[in-house]
Amino acid sequence: MNALQMLQKINAMAEFNRWCGIEVTVAEVGAVEIQMPWRAEVGQYSGFLHAGLIGTLIDTACGFAAATVAGPHLLASNFSVNCLRPAQGQTFIARARVVKPGKTQIFTSCDLFAVDAGQEKFVANGQTLLAVLQAPQ
Amino acid sequence: MNALQMLQKINAMAEFNRWCGIEVTVAEVGAVEIQMPWRAEVGQYSGFLHAGLIGTLIDTACGFAAATVAGPHLLASNFSVNCLRPAQGQTFIARARVVKPGKTQIFTSCDLFAVDAGQEKFVANGQTLLAVLQAPQ
Amino acid sequence: MNALQMLQKINAMAEFNRWCGIEVTVAEVGAVEIQMPWRAEVGQYSGFLHAGLIGTLIDTACGFAAATVAGPHLLASNFSVNCLRPAQGQTFIARARVVKPGKTQIFTSCDLFAVDAGQEKFVANGQTLLAVLQAPQ
Amino acid sequence: MNALQMLQKINAMAEFNRWCGIEVTVAEVGAVEIQMPWRAEVGQYSGFLHAGLIGTLIDTACGFAAATVAGPHLLASNFSVNCLRPAQGQTFIARARVVKPGKTQIFTSCDLFAVDAGQEKFVANGQTLLAVLQAPQ
Repeated sequence: MNALQMLQKINAMAEFNRWCGIEVTVAEVGAVEIQMPWRAEVGQYSGFLHAGLIGTLIDTACGFAAATVAGPHLLASNFSVNCLRPAQGQTFIARARVVKPGKTQIFTSCDLFAVDAGQEKFVANGQTLLAVLQAPQ
Repeated sequence: MNALQMLQKINAMAEFNRWCGIEVTVAEVGAVEIQMPWRAEVGQYSGFLHAGLIGTLIDTACGFAAATVAGPHLLASNFSVNCLRPAQGQTFIARARVVKPGKTQIFTSCDLFAVDAGQEKFVANGQTLLAVLQAPQ
Repeated sequence: MNALQMLQKINAMAEFNRWCGIEVTVAEVGAVEIQMPWRAEVGQYSGFLHAGLIGTLIDTACGFAAATVAGPHLLASNFSVNCLRPAQGQTFIARARVVKPGKTQIFTSCDLFAVDAGQEKFVANGQTLLAVLQAPQ
Repeated sequence: MNALQMLQKINAMAEFNRWCGIEVTVAEVGAVEIQMPWRAEVGQYSGFLHAGLIGTLIDTACGFAAATVAGPHLLASNFSVNCLRPAQGQTFIARARVVKPGKTQIFTSCDLFAVDAGQEKFVANGQTLLAVLQAPQ
């Protein structure tokens, strides 16, 4: 099972990821891409992507990037999100990478793009610090 | 229309808040409480509340707290979330308050509790920095 | 050696803390207070306390609060600072507390006050996530 | 006066920057580099660069990057720092860039390197969100 298959399997196990329609589209060691389609249920009060879902995509992509170097036994300790522009589009693409892997914690970073009429627009960025859990023995 | 009614109206306008089942339960000047029930669709891969929804509750409660002092024309610029413990419970309660109101930006803070078997457990905290938008003229 | 004595000893070992004139004034399990006097060398371009020193006080107080529950073998992984108001005063007081202790990481929080003409003004807040290092064996 | 000269002038007006020995070495629209030499007074208790000075370099470089697009009337609202590795070296180099400029707020990002025996090591990164002040009239 390669990194992409491992992440697609983890992604399928998370009920909320399935509801969101998140798909893992790229995975290599230390870097991943995920995508999510727009639909009305993911909107905030003025019809843009809800900030909570901006956070969801950034946290999820960062966690998957970390899993490519440390396996799936990880929990986010802290994540931080910058909302740069109103997030509006037909599809959202989050690209995350590992900034610094470690034995007990992994630093990651992510950029989020909204695809509108075929054009990518940079709408948010963020970071996640993940704790590496001890694998069950 | 008092603060609670204003927030309940804004909350009802956000499709994602409705899907989440978020309810505004307390609102006074500078402080609010919101609640969300657990259901399987909000879970991550091991059955806890998805970090994206932890962020959703913190960002939403912070935005509502800010709206009690500055009205609804606000956008989150940055939010940051600490996942202190696995978030597991029948209900989640976010309590947010305004730390510092300003003309162009508002600093807020939030604690998140999971209610499990009638007991509140402190599972996450966070903060949101909101930009005050110019009201349409 | 009690908590206050332990922290005063660590504080005295850090050259930069000595240059700043930082003193540990209160220490109990999970909570500390430190103080630093104003002088011209700590100013930014318009004569307020430099944001880097706001961060220094918050990071230092958070680290000391964590040390009261986990001992001194700690390193800050991430710290975040909100500059709420221009930091101007004769003395600066940082009060930090442990939000959540853990075996491998400790979440802390801090408020910073400027004392001006005998009055405390709340000028900044922040948080630090510390990693617990393995003690040398 | 070009961007580099403007920043060198601002840098010289900040007493703490002068004490630190910070120099502005590169400035173009949206991107800057600053440097600071190691000396014993900038150390924490085990002799690495104090986290407060890691924050100082990141906040300062981010503020200078923002000033290249918005002029000097700026204040940091929030800054966040990741300490990736112990910061040890003869010189520290912070490289910052504007992620998203705006009328009222500017998002910036920074990487910090320690130069040890002629080799750059990536030791920290961070971000600063700056508020654009109304120029005095």
